[in-house]
Amino acid sequence: MPTALPVIQPAVCCAPLVREPLGAADAEDLARVMKALADPARLRLLSIVAGSEGEEACVCDLIEPVGLAQPTVSHHLRILTEAGFLSRSKRGTWAYYALVPGSLERIADVLRP
Amino acid sequence: MPTALPVIQPAVCCAPLVREPLGAADAEDLARVMKALADPARLRLLSIVAGSEGEEACVCDLIEPVGLAQPTVSHHLRILTEAGFLSRSKRGTWAYYALVPGSLERIADVLRP
Repeated sequence: MPTALPVIQPAVCCAPLVREPLGAADAEDLARVMKALADPARLRLLSIVAGSEGEEACVCDLIEPVGLAQPTVSHHLRILTEAGFLSRSKRGTWAYYALVPGSLERIADVLRP
Repeated sequence: MPTALPVIQPAVCCAPLVREPLGAADAEDLARVMKALADPARLRLLSIVAGSEGEEACVCDLIEPVGLAQPTVSHHLRILTEAGFLSRSKRGTWAYYALVPGSLERIADVLRP
């Protein structure tokens, strides 16, 4: 049976940055989500998953393109999942990751005026 | 005479993340810029500067709202300036920071489909 980690919706917290001063708690939330994006390997993994057919990719297909060991890839995928950008389901031997719809747009909306 | 740090345009590098796999060099560039945003104090400073009248703020007016010492505030402002989000000009005793037009939108564009 497929299992999935719970998905945290990222940064639903915040009005656009330029519209009103960000409060302390919202800034903490948003920075936590931004940290998940602030890594080159994670950005590449996210773009590969997002561009995959069906917007889903097997972890087995992500190792070679980024040139990192599987435990490292799995570590980065976990951070992206915990930050709410990816969902994970296990089928047979492998874990499959999909982009959470709207997750990147929500961050984009905070950065736009 | 006012002096200004050179402005680096952030993340002009990258096509939208979901459109094509991000290359290694682009991912490094984008992660560097994201790191500047991945801090609660910097996000708050950016939102205060962006929301200030004339989209410019004196460093002297930024210390109290974020509750940090002036050297810490100046350190964060420098990181935001080096990442291309703020421009800095010195007039008399104080430095003034302004949002670089389009800098946040460029990041938003990379995150959007």
